[in-house]
Amino acid sequence: MTSIYLDYGAATPLADEVKLAMEPYETTLFYNPSALYLAAKQVASDIAAARADIAGTLGVHASDIIFTAGGTEANNLAIQGVMRQFPGGNVVVSAIEHQAILKPASQYDMHFCIVDSTGLVNIDNLVSQIDDKTVLVSIMYANNEVGTIEPLRHISAQINAIKKDRMSRHIMWPLYFHTDACQAANYLDIHCTRLGVDMMTLNGGKIYGPKQSGVLSVRPYVRLQPLIYGGGQERNMRSGTENVPGIIGFAKALTIAQTKQREESVRVQKLQQLFISELQKQIPNIVINGSMQYRVPNNVHITIPGQDNERMIMALDEKGVMCATGSACKASTDEPSHVLKALGISDEYARSSLRFTMGRGTTDTAILSTVKLLTSLLK
Amino acid sequence: MTSIYLDYGAATPLADEVKLAMEPYETTLFYNPSALYLAAKQVASDIAAARADIAGTLGVHASDIIFTAGGTEANNLAIQGVMRQFPGGNVVVSAIEHQAILKPASQYDMHFCIVDSTGLVNIDNLVSQIDDKTVLVSIMYANNEVGTIEPLRHISAQINAIKKDRMSRHIMWPLYFHTDACQAANYLDIHCTRLGVDMMTLNGGKIYGPKQSGVLSVRPYVRLQPLIYGGGQERNMRSGTENVPGIIGFAKALTIAQTKQREESVRVQKLQQLFISELQKQIPNIVINGSMQYRVPNNVHITIPGQDNERMIMALDEKGVMCATGSACKASTDEPSHVLKALGISDEYARSSLRFTMGRGTTDTAILSTVKLLTSLLK
Repeated sequence: MTSIYLDYGAATPLADEVKLAMEPYETTLFYNPSALYLAAKQVASDIAAARADIAGTLGVHASDIIFTAGGTEANNLAIQGVMRQFPGGNVVVSAIEHQAILKPASQYDMHFCIVDSTGLVNIDNLVSQIDDKTVLVSIMYANNEVGTIEPLRHISAQINAIKKDRMSRHIMWPLYFHTDACQAANYLDIHCTRLGVDMMTLNGGKIYGPKQSGVLSVRPYVRLQPLIYGGGQERNMRSGTENVPGIIGFAKALTIAQTKQREESVRVQKLQQLFISELQKQIPNIVINGSMQYRVPNNVHITIPGQDNERMIMALDEKGVMCATGSACKASTDEPSHVLKALGISDEYARSSLRFTMGRGTTDTAILSTVKLLTSLLK
Repeated sequence: MTSIYLDYGAATPLADEVKLAMEPYETTLFYNPSALYLAAKQVASDIAAARADIAGTLGVHASDIIFTAGGTEANNLAIQGVMRQFPGGNVVVSAIEHQAILKPASQYDMHFCIVDSTGLVNIDNLVSQIDDKTVLVSIMYANNEVGTIEPLRHISAQINAIKKDRMSRHIMWPLYFHTDACQAANYLDIHCTRLGVDMMTLNGGKIYGPKQSGVLSVRPYVRLQPLIYGGGQERNMRSGTENVPGIIGFAKALTIAQTKQREESVRVQKLQQLFISELQKQIPNIVINGSMQYRVPNNVHITIPGQDNERMIMALDEKGVMCATGSACKASTDEPSHVLKALGISDEYARSSLRFTMGRGTTDTAILSTVKLLTSLLK
């Protein structure tokens, strides 16, 4: 039995080139980059080069890049690192953010903005949630469950208008815009300047890079406090001996992802269309969740009314197909997804939903087999 | 020119067996351990086995082990995770703790206890620093600069006596004992129960394991809050998709370190004696810093009065010998070490000090060459 992996949204394998790029830093170039001898300074300079590469991709300065241990840490740094400095301030998030945003944000005065039934942020509602005490807006780039792409540029234009209005009224509190782009980097433009975001989170484990490697990109005017204090690495924003292989691997993974971006987006989008049309052909009562227009090309999220998703997952798994009920990141809870709830999907439908996320290893044969298998399970 | 690496206290290469153990989890077993299919559950069960192995070594329960991204994060979790819950409480630390303890502790009411001229904690002074508002005592196991081993068992006995006294007076605040054991795990007993510590920090990057892998061991009665919130991994204490290769690698590295512990301690201690006696023979005015009795076997810390340590480091580096002025972790500062200051060593002497830390690759030939080279530089 060949297995078919359709959970790239939860984890990606390490790309061969990434693995190769990391290896020297595990064995021969294992030095602590803060040490004073030349071999260590070479490692420090390789980190600097990786940082510059990433900054180039994001359209920011090298000094804007903070290496973190994963996307969750980067999100926490963005939220807590800003909000702790503004007691009385509030943070506006969409109702479909990842727990790595919702949980840290819920420690502060958190305002929700609603989304429509396809998962798109309602911009009027977002604007209405921002008041003079709002310090931070955090809206994800692409939703991890249903794949909806949020209109970051429109949102940043609105935020800029609010900032201008505040200026005219001499209100000096900052208003920062952060985006969690963990699910976006394989397929979308992640240029922070073009998108108009002040902070962006990226995650190596979702782009065929090392697990628990990540980046928070932070424009220089953002007032940020560290979460983790110590030796002062990452310009005091994330202490701890640098994860050199992780950093080198992350940079390599991001370069590859951006190089492949167009070609792979087109390829995967065709698979997505095939997947959806075949599903609709074979399973008449199927519901495709999320937006058909604004959607990452690797996501297919469905509801098959009346079917229990955990049972389906297990039955698919037995036949070699690996997929998800929703986010794998909400470790071991039975609650229906807050994302589906926010889209107006009933708990009953949520419990009949499956997420398939495709990636570099996905072929049309795999998609056709999956649809066939899923159909046969329903008989 | 063969290079001689004498900075194992700053970084260790990844052991071959560790690298081998990690590899499957980067490529074939790359799954997110929270996913529902069997292949992912297998990964989750391999993490559980790694956790149990580590717990066995530390003499604690598997559920006491929190995987963190490195020693600095683990120290921050111990300090901040406790102290944030006790406004008005204080934390007692030794004056020679690592910055990863001092910096987070300095955000709270921090009491210092002094050390003697060899770096040993003055227990009477420590006890006098603990008052009824003390919630946490954090004393490192082995100092990262001068290698002094602190008397953890004596300290824990004193802390237990204080706890009893508090009980008798119906003072219900907890008093926890944490130790940063990052420099200890290769050579010393790290059994938390025998040592009487409630929390212990370990760091993969110092034990021939992966960089930015670490553990905080926390007994179940310790009230701890997370630093990083999200999907609820690590029993809510450290969210973020698990660094599976890092966890597997850490466990393997710790097993190897503990297996080799006795043999390697004896071997390295002989090198330490050779190193010190040769240095004293060749450089009459040399000063050996730290304790001769309570010292990790891989550390040699010296002062050569009148010599500039950065110049010596560079001259040694040119001839292939890599060593340190002090902690590599205090990234890019020119201040003299707070550790040497606490030992009563003058700034002038501190600027003439070198740290050599030996490891698995160190041979007697390397030690003799280093002494010869250092001697020749002084002529």
